[in-house]
Amino acid sequence: MKKPQLIWDLKPVSYILGKDAVPLSLKKLANFSKRFILVDENTLDHCLPVFKRLTKNLEINGVITIKTVNNNKNIEETIHVWNKLTELGADRDSLLINLGGGVVTDLGGFAASTFKRGISFINYPTSLLGMIDAGIGGKTGLDFAGIKNQVGLFSNPICVVIDPVFLKTLDQKHLLSGFAEMLKCGLIMDRDLWQNLVNQDCLQISDWDALIVQSARNKVDIVRHDALEKGIRKILNFGHTIGHAIESHYFAKGQPVTHGEAVAAGIICETYISSKIYEFECTQFDEIIRIIDMNYNRFDLKVEDIENLFYFMSQDKKIKDGKYNFSLLRKLGKSVHDIEVDADIIRESIMYYIERKNCEN
Amino acid sequence: MKKPQLIWDLKPVSYILGKDAVPLSLKKLANFSKRFILVDENTLDHCLPVFKRLTKNLEINGVITIKTVNNNKNIEETIHVWNKLTELGADRDSLLINLGGGVVTDLGGFAASTFKRGISFINYPTSLLGMIDAGIGGKTGLDFAGIKNQVGLFSNPICVVIDPVFLKTLDQKHLLSGFAEMLKCGLIMDRDLWQNLVNQDCLQISDWDALIVQSARNKVDIVRHDALEKGIRKILNFGHTIGHAIESHYFAKGQPVTHGEAVAAGIICETYISSKIYEFECTQFDEIIRIIDMNYNRFDLKVEDIENLFYFMSQDKKIKDGKYNFSLLRKLGKSVHDIEVDADIIRESIMYYIERKNCEN
Repeated sequence: MKKPQLIWDLKPVSYILGKDAVPLSLKKLANFSKRFILVDENTLDHCLPVFKRLTKNLEINGVITIKTVNNNKNIEETIHVWNKLTELGADRDSLLINLGGGVVTDLGGFAASTFKRGISFINYPTSLLGMIDAGIGGKTGLDFAGIKNQVGLFSNPICVVIDPVFLKTLDQKHLLSGFAEMLKCGLIMDRDLWQNLVNQDCLQISDWDALIVQSARNKVDIVRHDALEKGIRKILNFGHTIGHAIESHYFAKGQPVTHGEAVAAGIICETYISSKIYEFECTQFDEIIRIIDMNYNRFDLKVEDIENLFYFMSQDKKIKDGKYNFSLLRKLGKSVHDIEVDADIIRESIMYYIERKNCEN
Repeated sequence: MKKPQLIWDLKPVSYILGKDAVPLSLKKLANFSKRFILVDENTLDHCLPVFKRLTKNLEINGVITIKTVNNNKNIEETIHVWNKLTELGADRDSLLINLGGGVVTDLGGFAASTFKRGISFINYPTSLLGMIDAGIGGKTGLDFAGIKNQVGLFSNPICVVIDPVFLKTLDQKHLLSGFAEMLKCGLIMDRDLWQNLVNQDCLQISDWDALIVQSARNKVDIVRHDALEKGIRKILNFGHTIGHAIESHYFAKGQPVTHGEAVAAGIICETYISSKIYEFECTQFDEIIRIIDMNYNRFDLKVEDIENLFYFMSQDKKIKDGKYNFSLLRKLGKSVHDIEVDADIIRESIMYYIERKNCEN
């Protein structure tokens, strides 16, 4: 299969990471005709005051708020943002400042990139997930027809500003959601990071700054090398093929779970698959499963749910010609991508998740 | 005002122009996992049979139809396309074939570029307007909140196939609509083309092939040099600043007019502005106005409509900091862009259009 798949090349991005990133980003906010801030109802209350305090004197021409409900990363909220930008008189030289978690940066990036054929935007991720994953890498998108990110674009912000100051505003559920991506990051590419996380109870961690910068840097490295996910970037999907299917499954049932909870479940299944293909040592395998189980309760998946998970996997953007391509662990800190896995082993891995067996069994 | 305005660079496009372009394009249609055709109700009836005859044996996995009503270049029809692509099992390696006029290529290009973060698309423009203008240049878009192309993207098809065979299916109204862009093309950059069109009654032209290829080549030349409309491409907007406002005005009144009719009116106004700034010879000025008036009836604009036209001009993507920037004629076949024009002269030009004065008056 040979064809010109690139529709465009992404432009480079600036990253400002770590303590005081917000005040350091002020120069990036200059030179726009108008500035608008996109928030959701949570970040409106908890993050916008912090942002305003740290960017005093910055003129803002309007605040646009999307609802904080499940399933708000949709076309209806995007239409709301386009309408507000129109009403507020945004022109081609305006800037959209996305202040929020993954929903705000994904949806705001999409809305900005498509408004008047594209206005500039800057991401200020405020959730742990956003800081180390969703806010970085130019993937914008909406959920559509019950499928995650079915509509979207690769489109880079001009700058991503990652300031742990916003973490103080985050509840435990969302901290745990981001923590799963941090664990994944260690597993696939950074054994040092993994060692720093082993035996950590997420909710007891008091100093996040270094962990965030280390995780975010890893992701920046990957997406700089492969912005459009033609190769190495695919390793970031470890835990996500089955994880996304689980997320969609519970979403369709009207019992939405956080992205990170679903990814944690996906990591268990896909670690199982990795161990079958690459003959992991039991100690390593058990260590991974133990840390996930220490932080996350397993979902009450049933055997009869498995076909539904396969349906959602078949909708995955990474599925080609009906083949299940996975990113897997080769060993701790090393991963591989584009590994075709038989449906039988996938099914077995979900059974393993459901039955909570040990490595030896 | 200095800022990184580019969000992405466009990828290069192949163009296949002229007689037998459709059969010649077959090789471009190979190597996709699935192929879908987007049509509207008109091109479904009149163009799809022609396309199928000329591409015999080509496997098509689904036909998606958008309504042929005024105001169909909108987000609702786009959602319909996304839904159909989902239902029909389109994946990232699928192709969308846009077979239709400017609405189908604009909307189809947008829908494809945003489906699963971008699938490939090919444009087969079937209208005169599409062949020489809308289908070329990577501008995709939707009308939104009553404003033309308020939502959209710069995104290139992998190929544009311009085959005059489809012209036979076109009604007079849409032939005239495209003809206005052809006249504009001659005026701004191709005096030879203009000479070929002078004294032509559009509806009496029997051999379009050479005129189409000449016009399409001019547009391809321009957009190759300036895909993202940072400079020279802006000359294509001659006639469009006031023309778009007139189009939006009648659209808002529930009396939609074709794009070309509105551009023809815009050409009259903006030729008037050009003549005031660059001191045209009366003979040239009169020649331009005469040819437009020979082919198009003037709209029944009223003095009290002028403020409404200014409102729509203020929404134009090309308006910066409230200044009215025009592309104007320097002389026949030569144009300039980014010329700031006072509101008074704009108003005067619309009065000239309303009052049908001669050059001498």
